[in-house]
Amino acid sequence: MSEFAKLWAEIAPIGRAGSGGYLRYALTTPELTLRDWFRAQAARRDMTVTEDGNGNLFAWRGEPWAPGTVLTGSHFDSVPHGGGYDGPLGIVSAFLAVDKIDKDRKVGIAAFVEEEGGRFGVPCLGSRLFTGVIDPERAAALTDRDGVTFGEALGRRPAGALPEIGQLAAVIELHIEQGRALEVPVGVASAIWPHGRWRMDFAGVGDHAGTTRMTDRRDPMLTFAFAVLAANKEARLAGAHATVGRVQAEPNATNAIPSLVRGWLDARAADTATLDRLVDAVVKKATERAGRDGTELTVTAESVTGEVTFDNELAERIAARLKAPILPTGAGHDAGVLSGHVPTAMLFVRNPTGVSHSPAEHASDADCEAGIEALATVLDDLT
Amino acid sequence: MSEFAKLWAEIAPIGRAGSGGYLRYALTTPELTLRDWFRAQAARRDMTVTEDGNGNLFAWRGEPWAPGTVLTGSHFDSVPHGGGYDGPLGIVSAFLAVDKIDKDRKVGIAAFVEEEGGRFGVPCLGSRLFTGVIDPERAAALTDRDGVTFGEALGRRPAGALPEIGQLAAVIELHIEQGRALEVPVGVASAIWPHGRWRMDFAGVGDHAGTTRMTDRRDPMLTFAFAVLAANKEARLAGAHATVGRVQAEPNATNAIPSLVRGWLDARAADTATLDRLVDAVVKKATERAGRDGTELTVTAESVTGEVTFDNELAERIAARLKAPILPTGAGHDAGVLSGHVPTAMLFVRNPTGVSHSPAEHASDADCEAGIEALATVLDDLT
Repeated sequence: MSEFAKLWAEIAPIGRAGSGGYLRYALTTPELTLRDWFRAQAARRDMTVTEDGNGNLFAWRGEPWAPGTVLTGSHFDSVPHGGGYDGPLGIVSAFLAVDKIDKDRKVGIAAFVEEEGGRFGVPCLGSRLFTGVIDPERAAALTDRDGVTFGEALGRRPAGALPEIGQLAAVIELHIEQGRALEVPVGVASAIWPHGRWRMDFAGVGDHAGTTRMTDRRDPMLTFAFAVLAANKEARLAGAHATVGRVQAEPNATNAIPSLVRGWLDARAADTATLDRLVDAVVKKATERAGRDGTELTVTAESVTGEVTFDNELAERIAARLKAPILPTGAGHDAGVLSGHVPTAMLFVRNPTGVSHSPAEHASDADCEAGIEALATVLDDLT
Repeated sequence: MSEFAKLWAEIAPIGRAGSGGYLRYALTTPELTLRDWFRAQAARRDMTVTEDGNGNLFAWRGEPWAPGTVLTGSHFDSVPHGGGYDGPLGIVSAFLAVDKIDKDRKVGIAAFVEEEGGRFGVPCLGSRLFTGVIDPERAAALTDRDGVTFGEALGRRPAGALPEIGQLAAVIELHIEQGRALEVPVGVASAIWPHGRWRMDFAGVGDHAGTTRMTDRRDPMLTFAFAVLAANKEARLAGAHATVGRVQAEPNATNAIPSLVRGWLDARAADTATLDRLVDAVVKKATERAGRDGTELTVTAESVTGEVTFDNELAERIAARLKAPILPTGAGHDAGVLSGHVPTAMLFVRNPTGVSHSPAEHASDADCEAGIEALATVLDDLT
């Protein structure tokens, strides 16, 4: 059994659901268990563990935040019933890559909190706090589905931006690829598409499904359904991506017309202008339909991330060193947030089916081991 | 304060949610509290309380099930965030009507379990069991949203059909009207539209919302949305009612294409042929769309109730006695199930806005008091 397979088997059962996917929401028992595992791995390697007051966890070879340190790592949290590789692969690979390089190299390993936004709604929450791109007060007030705030879950007001970030030499995040664009074991990221999440609240009038005449209805489920189809159509026309993967109806009873339907629009495009046009078109069409349905649409941008272009020079240096291809991605990552503050690069590990955010997500052990080798090479090269 | 207002105030706080509506699911704490209140009301009137082993509760003036008894009453359970009148008005009115008639009259008051189907999915479950129109094994295995079975909640295998039902002289259920068809305080029911619930499971392939190309998707949310709009259109064309008020997506994450979307179709029409044509048309159109979306649709009829025509002679006798209009309804009721076994009639109390299955459901105290008078008159006349 390889070192990778052994370490991977340690965390595989944690937070696994009956679906085969994972329920590893930020700051819940499975994710806290993974943090304990992180501390144990650091201790085994004599690495110092620190926290940043935002829920992010770090293990250091050398002094924490020593000038010239290269930070690697990823996140433990999953989307509901997501795969096991998205996030944890970057942390497991980081520990194993550190084992392969000299002990005097200055490396930090990060476990960022709430990367998926699966619990509190804003993705990359930990890296946004850490870099100061989200207000700690706003972050503290974000609520999960049970009404628990991020501040309550964290047990404190988030600390916000850390000035020490300026002392890092570089950030390297290793991550499973999430499309089918990578045909060799390891690739290097060029850019992340601009993307965002918009909450659409469709308000109507709740009433009895049996007795209310069709012409008397103000049924928000109709406007929601129209918006779902409009988003799909507009995204196809724009060569962009739009998804409504989350929906919530109130009161959500079979024999009641809903009073409210809430849907979340996830939209992404190759450039910001296309993304803006796409979202505007969906909102315009849904608002017109709301007028016909007698309902009301309110749209709230929960998070919007502009285009990320990773440090070109760094990506090219790494790609040359690894003889690896350079490719863009539609998925958001902590590295995208960090790239605004530190020279940042990403390594992708091949995903043969391209499936992600699903229990079917998979990478082969051999490709994961190639990823660890590549990460060790890069850390060795940069420190 | 009137006797009605006093009694109404006793139960008003039980199970009331922040929305102003009620969460009184069958066999949960609020509904069990209402059952205790029912027992106390019976005790106050020296009425004997019996149970039927199906979750239905009865209070008797005279011997339980004495030949020639007239049964009245309704149900305590609500749809999620439903109004307070739908169900409980018939029980409160029954106790107050019994107070107005001679003590030697043979009257029973029923509190039927799970009329809304809000917890276990099959409406009129208690009256279906009691009359033997649903198999006790099937009923016992029905599950709520947490996976608890009806048998577990009841604490036993349901007893099923009660032969004593044949000894009843009549059943009279008083209920708030649920449309705007009644323009005087009290009316008499002629018929209930045939109606049913069909669960539609749209299965697709879960994947990452950011990285999966539009052309590679098999997104069941699209097929669901199409079905919602098709149901609305077909119902309008047929002069019938169709509603999708309940939806559930898996994994229900903003950044994941769902693997499954489940929607419930509530459909009703003036006659069975129209209802069948309506449901067939919706399923056909949604199945065609599923073919285009690369998804699969499975439809399960959770409950289907044919047309109910109440005993004509009884309805006319009551309407003449009360000088009340006779009108049909699109809403299902326990009385509809019972009408197949005992001469059955319904009294409706005016609903000024027609709103029901919503916190906004309302009847005036004066109309409720007129309903009690009318029920007392009918019980007096029939016993």
